[in-house]
Amino acid sequence: MTTAELVNQIKVKKSFLCIGLDVDLNKIPQYLLATEDPIFEFNKAIIDATHDLCVSYKPNTAFYEAYGIKGWQSLEKTIQYINANYPDIFTIADAKRGDIGNTSSMYAKAFFEDLSFDSVTVAPYMGKDSVEPFLAFENKHTIMLALTSNQGAFDFQTKNVEGSQGEGELSGAKELYKTVLETSKGWNNAHNLMYVVGATKAEYFTEIRKIVPDSFLLVPGVGAQGGSLSEVCKYGMSENIGLLINSSRGIIYASNGEDFAVKAREEALKLQTEMEAILSNKSI
Amino acid sequence: MTTAELVNQIKVKKSFLCIGLDVDLNKIPQYLLATEDPIFEFNKAIIDATHDLCVSYKPNTAFYEAYGIKGWQSLEKTIQYINANYPDIFTIADAKRGDIGNTSSMYAKAFFEDLSFDSVTVAPYMGKDSVEPFLAFENKHTIMLALTSNQGAFDFQTKNVEGSQGEGELSGAKELYKTVLETSKGWNNAHNLMYVVGATKAEYFTEIRKIVPDSFLLVPGVGAQGGSLSEVCKYGMSENIGLLINSSRGIIYASNGEDFAVKAREEALKLQTEMEAILSNKSI
Repeated sequence: MTTAELVNQIKVKKSFLCIGLDVDLNKIPQYLLATEDPIFEFNKAIIDATHDLCVSYKPNTAFYEAYGIKGWQSLEKTIQYINANYPDIFTIADAKRGDIGNTSSMYAKAFFEDLSFDSVTVAPYMGKDSVEPFLAFENKHTIMLALTSNQGAFDFQTKNVEGSQGEGELSGAKELYKTVLETSKGWNNAHNLMYVVGATKAEYFTEIRKIVPDSFLLVPGVGAQGGSLSEVCKYGMSENIGLLINSSRGIIYASNGEDFAVKAREEALKLQTEMEAILSNKSI
Repeated sequence: MTTAELVNQIKVKKSFLCIGLDVDLNKIPQYLLATEDPIFEFNKAIIDATHDLCVSYKPNTAFYEAYGIKGWQSLEKTIQYINANYPDIFTIADAKRGDIGNTSSMYAKAFFEDLSFDSVTVAPYMGKDSVEPFLAFENKHTIMLALTSNQGAFDFQTKNVEGSQGEGELSGAKELYKTVLETSKGWNNAHNLMYVVGATKAEYFTEIRKIVPDSFLLVPGVGAQGGSLSEVCKYGMSENIGLLINSSRGIIYASNGEDFAVKAREEALKLQTEMEAILSNKSI
Protein backbone atom coordinates (compact mmCIF):
# COMPACT_ATOMS: atom_id res chain seq x y z
CA MET A 1 0.00 0.00 0.00
CA THR A 2 1.31 3.46 -0.84
CA THR A 3 1.29 6.31 1.66
CA ALA A 4 -1.22 8.15 -0.56
CA GLU A 5 -3.56 5.15 -0.39
CA LEU A 6 -3.25 5.09 3.39
CA VAL A 7 -4.07 8.80 3.60
CA ASN A 8 -7.05 8.23 1.34
CA GLN A 9 -8.32 5.41 3.55
CA ILE A 10 -8.08 7.69 6.57
CA LYS A 11 -10.19 10.30 4.79
CA VAL A 12 -12.76 7.75 3.63
CA LYS A 13 -13.14 6.09 7.03
CA LYS A 14 -12.62 9.30 9.03
CA SER A 15 -10.32 7.29 11.22
CA PHE A 16 -6.61 6.91 11.81
CA LEU A 17 -7.08 4.11 14.29
CA CYS A 18 -4.81 1.09 14.39
CA ILE A 19 -5.93 -1.89 16.43
CA GLY A 20 -3.23 -3.97 18.05
CA LEU A 21 -3.93 -7.70 17.87
CA ASP A 22 -1.91 -8.79 20.91
CA VAL A 23 -3.73 -11.98 21.72
CA ASP A 24 -3.07 -13.60 25.07
CA LEU A 25 -4.89 -16.92 25.56
CA ASN A 26 -5.30 -16.08 29.25
CA LYS A 27 -7.29 -12.95 28.43
CA ILE A 28 -9.65 -13.99 25.64
CA PRO A 29 -13.12 -15.44 26.25
CA GLN A 30 -12.47 -18.91 27.55
CA TYR A 31 -15.12 -20.58 25.37
CA LEU A 32 -12.89 -19.83 22.36
CA LEU A 33 -10.26 -22.22 23.71
CA ALA A 34 -12.43 -25.11 22.51
CA THR A 35 -11.98 -24.04 18.88
CA GLU A 36 -9.15 -25.37 16.72
CA ASP A 37 -7.37 -22.01 16.49
CA PRO A 38 -8.54 -19.74 19.33
CA ILE A 39 -6.15 -16.92 18.43
CA PHE A 40 -7.36 -16.74 14.85
CA GLU A 41 -11.02 -17.07 15.86
CA PHE A 42 -10.57 -14.21 18.30
CA ASN A 43 -8.82 -12.03 15.70
CA LYS A 44 -11.40 -12.83 13.01
CA ALA A 45 -14.25 -11.75 15.28
CA ILE A 46 -12.45 -8.55 16.29
CA ILE A 47 -11.58 -7.74 12.67
CA ASP A 48 -15.09 -8.42 11.35
CA ALA A 49 -16.52 -6.18 14.09
CA THR A 50 -14.12 -3.24 13.68
CA HIS A 51 -12.73 -3.11 10.12
CA ASP A 52 -14.85 -0.13 9.07
CA LEU A 53 -13.71 1.90 12.10
CA CYS A 54 -9.96 1.51 11.71
CA VAL A 55 -7.42 1.74 8.91
CA SER A 56 -4.83 -0.64 10.32
CA TYR A 57 -4.28 -3.84 12.30
CA LYS A 58 -1.06 -4.49 14.13
CA PRO A 59 -0.35 -7.99 15.42
CA ASN A 60 2.65 -7.99 17.75
CA THR A 61 4.71 -11.04 16.80
CA ALA A 62 5.66 -11.83 20.43
CA PHE A 63 2.11 -12.94 21.18
CA TYR A 64 2.24 -15.44 18.31
CA GLU A 65 5.79 -16.71 18.78
CA ALA A 66 4.93 -17.48 22.41
CA TYR A 67 2.72 -20.29 21.08
CA GLY A 68 5.34 -21.71 18.74
CA ILE A 69 4.32 -23.15 15.38
CA LYS A 70 0.62 -22.96 16.27
CA GLY A 71 1.07 -19.27 17.03
CA TRP A 72 2.91 -18.66 13.78
CA GLN A 73 0.04 -20.40 11.96
CA SER A 74 -2.45 -18.12 13.71
CA LEU A 75 -0.43 -15.10 12.59
CA GLU A 76 -0.33 -16.34 9.00
CA LYS A 77 -4.07 -17.04 8.98
CA THR A 78 -4.77 -13.60 10.46
CA ILE A 79 -2.79 -11.66 7.86
CA GLN A 80 -4.23 -13.81 5.07
CA TYR A 81 -7.75 -13.17 6.35
CA ILE A 82 -7.20 -9.41 6.43
CA ASN A 83 -5.58 -9.29 2.99
CA ALA A 84 -8.31 -11.46 1.44
CA ASN A 85 -11.32 -9.74 3.00
CA TYR A 86 -10.22 -6.21 3.78
CA PRO A 87 -7.50 -5.32 1.28
CA ASP A 88 -7.78 -1.60 2.12
CA ILE A 89 -6.38 -2.23 5.60
CA PHE A 90 -2.77 -1.17 6.26
CA THR A 91 -1.13 -4.11 8.03
CA ILE A 92 1.73 -3.76 10.51
CA ALA A 93 3.92 -6.59 11.77
CA ASP A 94 5.00 -5.25 15.15
CA ALA A 95 8.21 -7.23 15.29
CA LYS A 96 10.89 -4.68 16.28
CA ARG A 97 13.51 -6.52 14.25
CA GLY A 98 17.00 -5.42 13.22
CA ASP A 99 20.26 -7.23 12.48
CA ILE A 100 23.31 -7.05 10.22
CA GLY A 101 22.51 -6.44 6.56
CA ASN A 102 22.11 -9.91 5.09
CA THR A 103 20.11 -10.97 8.15
CA SER A 104 17.80 -7.96 8.04
CA SER A 105 17.14 -8.89 4.41
CA MET A 106 15.82 -12.24 5.61
CA TYR A 107 13.50 -10.51 8.09
CA ALA A 108 12.28 -8.17 5.35
CA LYS A 109 11.57 -11.19 3.17
CA ALA A 110 9.72 -12.89 6.04
CA PHE A 111 7.34 -10.00 6.72
CA PHE A 112 7.00 -8.26 3.34
CA GLU A 113 7.05 -11.29 1.04
CA ASP A 114 6.22 -14.47 2.91
CA LEU A 115 3.54 -12.90 5.13
CA SER A 116 2.63 -9.96 2.83
CA PHE A 117 2.50 -7.31 5.54
CA ASP A 118 2.46 -3.67 4.38
CA SER A 119 4.92 -2.67 7.09
CA VAL A 120 7.15 -3.89 9.89
CA THR A 121 8.54 -2.20 13.00
CA VAL A 122 12.33 -2.16 13.43
CA ALA A 123 14.83 -1.15 16.12
CA PRO A 124 17.50 1.49 15.34
CA TYR A 125 20.39 0.41 17.60
CA MET A 126 22.42 -1.33 14.86
CA GLY A 127 22.21 1.66 12.51
CA LYS A 128 21.89 2.30 8.81
CA ASP A 129 22.90 -1.04 7.32
CA SER A 130 20.51 -2.88 9.65
CA VAL A 131 17.50 -0.87 8.44
CA GLU A 132 18.20 -0.18 4.75
CA PRO A 133 17.45 -3.79 3.69
CA PHE A 134 13.86 -3.16 4.83
CA LEU A 135 13.72 0.21 3.09
CA ALA A 136 14.65 -1.38 -0.25
CA PHE A 137 11.09 -2.70 -0.64
CA GLU A 138 8.99 -0.19 -2.56
CA ASN A 139 5.45 0.45 -1.30
CA LYS A 140 6.38 -1.34 1.91
CA HIS A 141 6.92 0.72 5.05
CA THR A 142 9.54 0.42 7.76
CA ILE A 143 8.40 1.81 11.09
CA MET A 144 11.45 2.55 13.23
CA LEU A 145 11.43 2.97 16.99
CA ALA A 146 12.16 6.59 17.92
CA LEU A 147 10.60 7.41 21.30
CA THR A 148 8.73 4.53 22.86
CA SER A 149 5.88 4.65 25.36
CA ASN A 150 7.47 2.68 28.20
CA GLN A 151 9.42 3.89 31.23
CA GLY A 152 12.64 2.41 29.78
CA ALA A 153 12.49 5.07 27.03
CA PHE A 154 14.24 7.34 29.54
CA ASP A 155 17.19 4.94 29.97
CA PHE A 156 18.77 5.74 26.60
CA GLN A 157 16.36 7.38 24.14
CA THR A 158 16.15 10.72 25.95
CA LYS A 159 19.84 10.93 26.83
CA ASN A 160 21.76 13.74 25.16
CA VAL A 161 24.08 12.64 22.38
CA GLU A 162 26.85 14.63 20.73
CA GLY A 163 26.04 16.24 17.40
CA SER A 164 28.99 14.86 15.50
CA GLN A 165 31.29 11.95 16.24
CA GLY A 166 34.83 12.01 17.59
CA GLU A 167 35.00 15.57 18.85
CA GLY A 168 36.45 16.42 22.25
CA GLU A 169 33.64 18.88 22.85
CA LEU A 170 30.05 17.68 22.75
CA SER A 171 28.72 20.26 20.35
CA GLY A 172 25.14 20.38 19.13
CA ALA A 173 24.04 17.77 21.65
CA LYS A 174 20.51 16.44 21.36
CA GLU A 175 18.52 13.49 22.66
CA LEU A 176 19.24 10.08 21.18
CA TYR A 177 15.75 9.75 19.69
CA LYS A 178 16.24 13.02 17.81
CA THR A 179 19.63 11.83 16.58
CA VAL A 180 17.93 8.63 15.38
CA LEU A 181 15.24 10.62 13.55
CA GLU A 182 17.71 13.02 11.92
CA THR A 183 20.26 10.40 10.97
CA SER A 184 17.65 8.14 9.38
CA LYS A 185 16.52 10.89 7.03
CA GLY A 186 19.79 10.44 5.12
CA TRP A 187 19.41 6.71 4.56
CA ASN A 188 18.63 5.19 1.17
CA ASN A 189 14.88 5.07 0.49
CA ALA A 190 14.18 7.06 3.64
CA HIS A 191 10.79 7.93 2.12
CA ASN A 192 9.73 4.41 3.15
CA LEU A 193 10.31 5.23 6.84
CA MET A 194 7.67 5.82 9.49
CA TYR A 195 8.42 6.13 13.21
CA VAL A 196 7.11 4.83 16.53
CA VAL A 197 6.45 7.68 18.98
CA GLY A 198 4.70 6.99 22.27
CA ALA A 199 1.52 8.92 23.11
CA THR A 200 2.51 9.13 26.75
CA LYS A 201 4.83 11.99 25.84
CA ALA A 202 2.59 14.33 23.82
CA GLU A 203 4.76 17.36 24.56
CA TYR A 204 7.58 15.78 22.55
CA PHE A 205 5.59 15.82 19.30
CA THR A 206 6.32 19.50 18.59
CA GLU A 207 10.05 18.80 18.59
CA ILE A 208 9.62 15.63 16.57
CA ARG A 209 7.58 17.44 13.89
CA LYS A 210 10.45 19.91 13.44
CA ILE A 211 12.64 16.98 12.38
CA VAL A 212 10.12 14.85 10.45
CA PRO A 213 7.29 17.21 9.46
CA ASP A 214 5.59 14.84 7.04
CA SER A 215 6.43 11.31 8.16
CA PHE A 216 3.75 9.00 9.47
CA LEU A 217 4.06 8.31 13.20
CA LEU A 218 2.71 5.13 14.75
CA VAL A 219 1.56 6.12 18.21
CA PRO A 220 1.08 3.49 20.92
CA GLY A 221 0.17 4.37 24.46
CA VAL A 222 -3.36 5.75 24.02
CA GLY A 223 -5.75 3.99 26.37
CA ALA A 224 -4.27 1.33 28.66
CA GLN A 225 -0.94 3.17 28.82
CA GLY A 226 -2.56 6.54 29.58
CA GLY A 227 -1.88 8.77 26.56
CA SER A 228 -4.35 11.43 25.37
CA LEU A 229 -5.63 11.30 21.79
CA SER A 230 -6.48 15.01 21.60
CA GLU A 231 -3.06 16.04 22.95
CA VAL A 232 -1.24 13.81 20.45
CA CYS A 233 -3.26 15.22 17.56
CA LYS A 234 -2.77 18.81 18.75
CA TYR A 235 1.01 18.51 18.65
CA GLY A 236 1.58 15.61 16.27
CA MET A 237 -0.81 15.87 13.33
CA SER A 238 0.82 16.87 10.07
CA GLU A 239 -0.75 18.52 7.02
CA ASN A 240 -1.29 15.05 5.61
CA ILE A 241 -2.56 13.68 8.96
CA GLY A 242 0.61 11.62 9.51
CA LEU A 243 -0.67 9.72 12.53
CA LEU A 244 -1.71 6.16 13.18
CA ILE A 245 -3.00 5.87 16.74
CA ASN A 246 -2.79 2.38 18.16
CA SER A 247 -4.97 0.87 20.82
CA SER A 248 -4.62 -2.77 21.76
CA ARG A 249 -5.85 -3.90 25.16
CA GLY A 250 -8.41 -1.09 25.52
CA ILE A 251 -10.29 -2.43 22.49
CA ILE A 252 -9.68 -6.15 22.20
CA TYR A 253 -10.15 -6.89 25.91
CA ALA A 254 -13.12 -4.58 26.45
CA SER A 255 -14.99 -7.71 27.50
CA ASN A 256 -13.95 -11.30 28.03
CA GLY A 257 -17.47 -12.64 27.59
CA GLU A 258 -19.33 -13.76 24.48
CA ASP A 259 -19.97 -10.10 23.68
CA PHE A 260 -16.22 -9.36 23.29
CA ALA A 261 -16.48 -8.35 19.63
CA VAL A 262 -19.50 -6.12 20.24
CA LYS A 263 -17.72 -4.42 23.14
CA ALA A 264 -14.55 -4.08 21.09
CA ARG A 265 -16.57 -2.32 18.39
CA GLU A 266 -18.01 0.05 20.99
CA GLU A 267 -14.52 1.01 22.18
CA ALA A 268 -13.23 1.38 18.62
CA LEU A 269 -16.25 3.52 17.77
CA LYS A 270 -15.49 5.88 20.67
CA LEU A 271 -12.01 6.48 19.32
CA GLN A 272 -13.17 6.73 15.71
CA THR A 273 -15.84 9.26 16.69
CA GLU A 274 -13.23 11.36 18.49
CA MET A 275 -10.96 11.10 15.44
CA GLU A 276 -13.77 12.12 13.06
CA ALA A 277 -14.34 15.26 15.15
CA ILE A 278 -10.63 16.10 15.12
CA LEU A 279 -10.42 15.65 11.35
CA SER A 280 -13.58 17.70 10.87
CA ASN A 281 -12.16 20.53 13.00
CA LYS A 282 -9.12 20.54 10.75
CA SER A 283 -11.35 20.45 7.62
CA ILE A 284 -9.78 17.18 6.53
CA MET B 1 22.54 -24.16 31.81
CA THR B 2 24.40 -22.21 34.48
CA THR B 3 27.39 -20.03 33.71
CA ALA B 4 29.58 -22.40 35.74
CA GLU B 5 28.45 -25.32 33.55
CA LEU B 6 29.27 -23.32 30.44
CA VAL B 7 32.75 -22.52 31.75
CA ASN B 8 33.23 -26.19 32.58
CA GLN B 9 32.23 -27.20 29.04
CA ILE B 10 34.77 -24.76 27.64
CA LYS B 11 37.49 -26.34 29.76
CA VAL B 12 36.48 -29.89 28.85
CA LYS B 13 36.28 -29.20 25.11
CA LYS B 14 39.13 -26.68 25.08
CA SER B 15 36.92 -24.55 22.92
CA PHE B 16 34.82 -21.41 23.29
CA LEU B 17 33.48 -21.67 19.77
CA CYS B 18 29.87 -20.89 18.89
CA ILE B 19 28.65 -21.94 15.46
CA GLY B 20 26.00 -19.78 13.85
CA LEU B 21 23.30 -21.79 12.10
CA ASP B 22 22.23 -19.13 9.59
CA VAL B 23 20.82 -21.39 6.92
CA ASP B 24 20.08 -19.89 3.52
CA LEU B 25 18.51 -22.34 1.07
CA ASN B 26 20.41 -20.64 -1.76
CA LYS B 27 23.75 -21.48 -0.17
CA ILE B 28 23.38 -25.05 1.07
CA PRO B 29 24.20 -28.11 -1.08
CA GLN B 30 21.43 -28.25 -3.61
CA TYR B 31 20.87 -32.02 -3.27
CA LEU B 32 19.47 -31.35 0.20
CA LEU B 33 16.54 -29.48 -1.34
CA ALA B 34 15.02 -32.85 -2.27
CA THR B 35 14.65 -33.76 1.41
CA GLU B 36 11.51 -32.99 3.38
CA ASP B 37 13.21 -30.43 5.63
CA PRO B 38 16.42 -29.22 3.98
CA ILE B 39 17.21 -26.67 6.73
CA PHE B 40 16.99 -29.26 9.49
CA GLU B 41 18.93 -31.87 7.47
CA PHE B 42 21.67 -29.31 6.88
CA ASN B 43 21.79 -28.33 10.56
CA LYS B 44 21.76 -31.95 11.73
CA ALA B 45 24.75 -32.78 9.54
CA ILE B 46 26.66 -29.70 10.70
CA ILE B 47 25.86 -30.38 14.35
CA ASP B 48 26.81 -34.07 14.17
CA ALA B 49 30.10 -33.13 12.51
CA THR B 50 31.11 -30.32 14.90
CA HIS B 51 29.50 -30.81 18.33
CA ASP B 52 32.73 -31.91 20.01
CA LEU B 53 34.60 -28.84 18.74
CA CYS B 54 32.20 -26.14 19.93
CA VAL B 55 30.27 -25.31 23.08
CA SER B 56 27.39 -23.45 21.50
CA TYR B 57 25.08 -23.26 18.48
CA LYS B 58 23.35 -20.05 17.54
CA PRO B 59 20.51 -20.15 15.01
CA ASN B 60 19.59 -16.64 13.88
CA THR B 61 15.80 -16.54 13.82
CA ALA B 62 15.66 -14.38 10.68
CA PHE B 63 16.83 -17.28 8.54
CA TYR B 64 13.97 -19.44 9.81
CA GLU B 65 11.21 -16.83 9.80
CA ALA B 66 12.04 -16.11 6.16
CA TYR B 67 10.57 -19.53 5.35
CA GLY B 68 7.39 -19.04 7.38
CA ILE B 69 5.86 -21.95 9.24
CA LYS B 70 8.19 -24.44 7.56
CA GLY B 71 11.14 -22.40 8.77
CA TRP B 72 9.77 -22.20 12.31
CA GLN B 73 9.37 -26.00 12.23
CA SER B 74 13.00 -26.35 11.15
CA LEU B 75 14.06 -24.14 14.05
CA GLU B 76 12.02 -26.19 16.50
CA LYS B 77 13.42 -29.47 15.17
CA THR B 78 16.96 -28.09 15.35
CA ILE B 79 16.77 -27.00 18.98
CA GLN B 80 15.03 -30.24 19.94
CA TYR B 81 17.74 -32.24 18.18
CA ILE B 82 20.50 -30.39 20.03
CA ASN B 83 18.80 -30.65 23.41
CA ALA B 84 18.05 -34.36 22.96
CA ASN B 85 21.45 -35.42 21.62
CA TYR B 86 23.94 -32.89 22.92
CA PRO B 87 22.54 -31.52 26.19
CA ASP B 88 25.91 -30.02 27.14
CA ILE B 89 25.62 -27.48 24.30
CA PHE B 90 24.77 -23.88 25.24
CA THR B 91 22.03 -22.82 22.82
CA ILE B 92 21.49 -19.23 21.69
CA ALA B 93 18.40 -17.92 19.91
CA ASP B 94 19.84 -14.98 18.00
CA ALA B 95 16.59 -13.05 17.84
CA LYS B 96 17.52 -9.51 18.94
CA ARG B 97 14.10 -9.02 20.51
CA GLY B 98 12.87 -6.28 22.83
CA ASP B 99 9.49 -4.66 23.52
CA ILE B 100 7.42 -3.20 26.34
CA GLY B 101 7.32 -5.34 29.48
CA ASN B 102 4.32 -7.62 28.98
CA THR B 103 5.37 -8.18 25.36
CA SER B 104 8.98 -9.00 26.22
CA SER B 105 7.57 -11.56 28.66
CA MET B 106 5.91 -13.28 25.70
CA TYR B 107 9.21 -13.36 23.79
CA ALA B 108 10.97 -14.76 26.85
CA LYS B 109 8.31 -17.46 27.09
CA ALA B 110 8.72 -18.22 23.37
CA PHE B 111 12.47 -18.76 23.50
CA PHE B 112 13.11 -19.96 27.05
CA GLU B 113 10.02 -22.12 27.60
CA ASP B 114 8.41 -23.07 24.30
CA LEU B 115 11.70 -23.62 22.43
CA SER B 116 13.91 -24.35 25.48
CA PHE B 117 16.85 -22.22 24.42
CA ASP B 118 19.48 -21.46 27.08
CA SER B 119 19.74 -17.87 25.94
CA VAL B 120 18.36 -15.20 23.63
CA THR B 121 19.83 -12.02 22.19
CA VAL B 122 17.99 -8.75 22.90
CA ALA B 123 18.25 -5.10 21.80
CA PRO B 124 18.75 -2.35 24.43
CA TYR B 125 16.99 0.63 22.82
CA MET B 126 13.77 0.35 24.87
CA GLY B 127 15.64 0.18 28.17
CA LYS B 128 15.30 -1.58 31.50
CA ASP B 129 11.67 -2.69 31.47
CA SER B 130 12.08 -4.19 27.99
CA VAL B 131 14.95 -6.45 29.12
CA GLU B 132 14.12 -7.36 32.74
CA PRO B 133 11.32 -9.78 31.74
CA PHE B 134 14.02 -11.90 30.07
CA LEU B 135 16.33 -11.60 33.08
CA ALA B 136 13.65 -12.98 35.38
CA PHE B 137 14.33 -16.52 34.12
CA GLU B 138 16.94 -18.20 36.34
CA ASN B 139 19.65 -20.22 34.60
CA LYS B 140 18.64 -18.62 31.32
CA HIS B 141 20.84 -15.97 29.79
CA THR B 142 19.98 -12.70 28.10
CA ILE B 143 22.61 -11.55 25.64
CA MET B 144 22.20 -7.82 25.03
CA LEU B 145 23.59 -5.94 22.05
CA ALA B 146 26.36 -3.59 23.17
CA LEU B 147 28.78 -2.96 20.30
CA THR B 148 27.87 -4.79 17.10
CA SER B 149 30.17 -5.87 14.28
CA ASN B 150 28.51 -3.98 11.42
CA GLN B 151 29.30 -0.56 9.98
CA GLY B 152 26.04 0.82 11.38
CA ALA B 153 27.49 0.38 14.89
CA PHE B 154 29.09 3.79 14.34
CA ASP B 155 25.74 5.47 13.67
CA PHE B 156 24.60 5.47 17.30
CA GLN B 157 26.51 2.98 19.49
CA THR B 158 29.80 4.89 19.46
CA LYS B 159 28.30 8.36 19.84
CA ASN B 160 29.07 10.13 23.06
CA VAL B 161 26.19 10.30 25.52
CA GLU B 162 25.92 12.48 28.61
CA GLY B 163 26.67 10.85 31.94
CA SER B 164 23.50 11.94 33.67
CA GLN B 165 20.20 13.12 32.27
CA GLY B 166 18.82 16.64 32.11
CA GLU B 167 21.95 18.66 32.78
CA GLY B 168 22.84 21.69 30.73
CA GLU B 169 26.45 20.57 30.60
CA LEU B 170 27.26 17.15 29.17
CA SER B 171 29.39 15.92 32.04
CA GLY B 172 30.99 12.51 32.18
CA ALA B 173 30.16 11.81 28.55
CA LYS B 174 30.86 8.36 27.19
CA GLU B 175 29.91 6.28 24.18
CA LEU B 176 26.36 4.91 24.03
CA TYR B 177 27.51 1.27 24.13
CA LYS B 178 29.37 2.00 27.39
CA THR B 179 26.29 3.71 28.80
CA VAL B 180 24.28 0.63 27.85
CA LEU B 181 26.79 -1.68 29.58
CA GLU B 182 26.99 0.42 32.74
CA THR B 183 23.26 1.08 33.02
CA SER B 184 22.38 -2.59 32.59
CA LYS B 185 24.54 -3.60 35.53
CA GLY B 186 21.94 -2.02 37.82
CA TRP B 187 18.98 -3.97 36.44
CA ASN B 188 17.22 -6.72 38.37
CA ASN B 189 18.90 -10.09 37.86
CA ALA B 190 21.76 -8.46 35.95
CA HIS B 191 23.81 -11.59 36.68
CA ASN B 192 21.83 -13.24 33.89
CA LEU B 193 23.19 -10.75 31.33
CA MET B 194 25.79 -11.42 28.67
CA TYR B 195 26.66 -8.96 25.89
CA VAL B 196 27.22 -8.94 22.13
CA VAL B 197 30.53 -7.28 21.22
CA GLY B 198 31.79 -7.41 17.65
CA ALA B 199 35.25 -8.86 16.97
CA THR B 200 35.93 -6.31 14.27
CA LYS B 201 36.75 -3.79 16.99
CA ALA B 202 39.25 -5.69 19.17
CA GLU B 203 40.75 -2.50 20.57
CA TYR B 204 37.45 -1.74 22.30
CA PHE B 205 37.65 -4.84 24.50
CA THR B 206 40.02 -3.25 27.01
CA GLU B 207 37.49 -0.51 27.72
CA ILE B 208 34.62 -2.96 27.84
CA ARG B 209 36.40 -5.17 30.37
CA LYS B 210 36.76 -2.17 32.67
CA ILE B 211 32.96 -1.99 32.81
CA VAL B 212 32.02 -5.69 32.74
CA PRO B 213 35.15 -7.56 33.89
CA ASP B 214 33.47 -10.93 34.36
CA SER B 215 30.50 -11.04 32.00
CA PHE B 216 30.41 -13.42 29.07
CA LEU B 217 30.71 -11.68 25.71
CA LEU B 218 29.28 -13.21 22.55
CA VAL B 219 31.63 -12.14 19.79
CA PRO B 220 30.51 -12.24 16.16
CA GLY B 221 32.68 -10.99 13.34
CA VAL B 222 35.53 -13.52 13.37
CA GLY B 223 36.03 -14.99 9.93
CA ALA B 224 33.77 -13.70 7.15
CA GLN B 225 33.51 -10.27 8.79
CA GLY B 226 37.28 -9.97 9.29
CA GLY B 227 37.87 -10.06 13.06
CA SER B 228 40.99 -11.62 14.60
CA LEU B 229 40.58 -14.37 17.20
CA SER B 230 43.94 -13.76 18.87
CA GLU B 231 43.34 -10.01 19.15
CA VAL B 232 39.92 -10.54 20.71
CA CYS B 233 41.33 -13.00 23.25
CA LYS B 234 44.27 -10.72 24.05
CA TYR B 235 42.02 -7.84 25.04
CA GLY B 236 38.73 -9.57 25.85
CA MET B 237 39.38 -12.76 27.78
CA SER B 238 38.44 -12.60 31.45
CA GLU B 239 39.75 -14.69 34.33
CA ASN B 240 36.88 -17.08 33.75
CA ILE B 241 37.34 -17.03 29.94
CA GLY B 242 34.19 -14.97 29.41
CA LEU B 243 34.15 -15.27 25.61
CA LEU B 244 32.00 -17.12 23.12
CA ILE B 245 33.43 -16.60 19.65
CA ASN B 246 30.90 -17.05 16.89
CA SER B 247 31.56 -18.10 13.35
CA SER B 248 28.70 -18.73 10.96
CA ARG B 249 29.39 -18.55 7.23
CA GLY B 250 33.10 -19.41 7.54
CA ILE B 251 32.17 -22.81 8.93
CA ILE B 252 28.77 -23.83 7.61
CA TYR B 253 29.43 -22.75 4.02
CA ALA B 254 33.02 -24.02 3.82
CA SER B 255 31.76 -26.20 0.96
CA ASN B 256 28.48 -26.42 -0.88
CA GLY B 257 29.13 -29.95 -2.11
CA GLU B 258 28.34 -33.31 -0.54
CA ASP B 259 31.41 -32.84 1.68
CA PHE B 260 29.92 -29.75 3.38
CA ALA B 261 29.86 -31.30 6.86
CA VAL B 262 33.42 -32.62 6.56
CA LYS B 263 34.65 -29.23 5.41
CA ALA B 264 32.67 -27.50 8.17
CA ARG B 265 34.43 -29.74 10.69
CA GLU B 266 37.81 -28.81 9.21
CA GLU B 267 37.06 -25.10 9.63
CA ALA B 268 35.71 -25.59 13.15
CA LEU B 269 38.80 -27.64 14.03
CA LYS B 270 41.08 -24.81 12.89
CA LEU B 271 39.36 -22.41 15.27
CA GLN B 272 39.18 -24.96 18.10
CA THR B 273 42.91 -25.70 17.73
CA GLU B 274 43.70 -22.00 17.89
CA MET B 275 41.46 -21.69 20.97
CA GLU B 276 43.11 -24.68 22.68
CA ALA B 277 46.52 -23.03 22.22
CA ILE B 278 45.23 -19.76 23.65
CA LEU B 279 43.72 -21.51 26.69
CA SER B 280 46.90 -23.53 27.16
CA ASN B 281 49.01 -20.33 27.08
CA LYS B 282 46.80 -18.96 29.82
CA SER B 283 47.06 -22.26 31.77
CA ILE B 284 43.29 -22.70 31.61
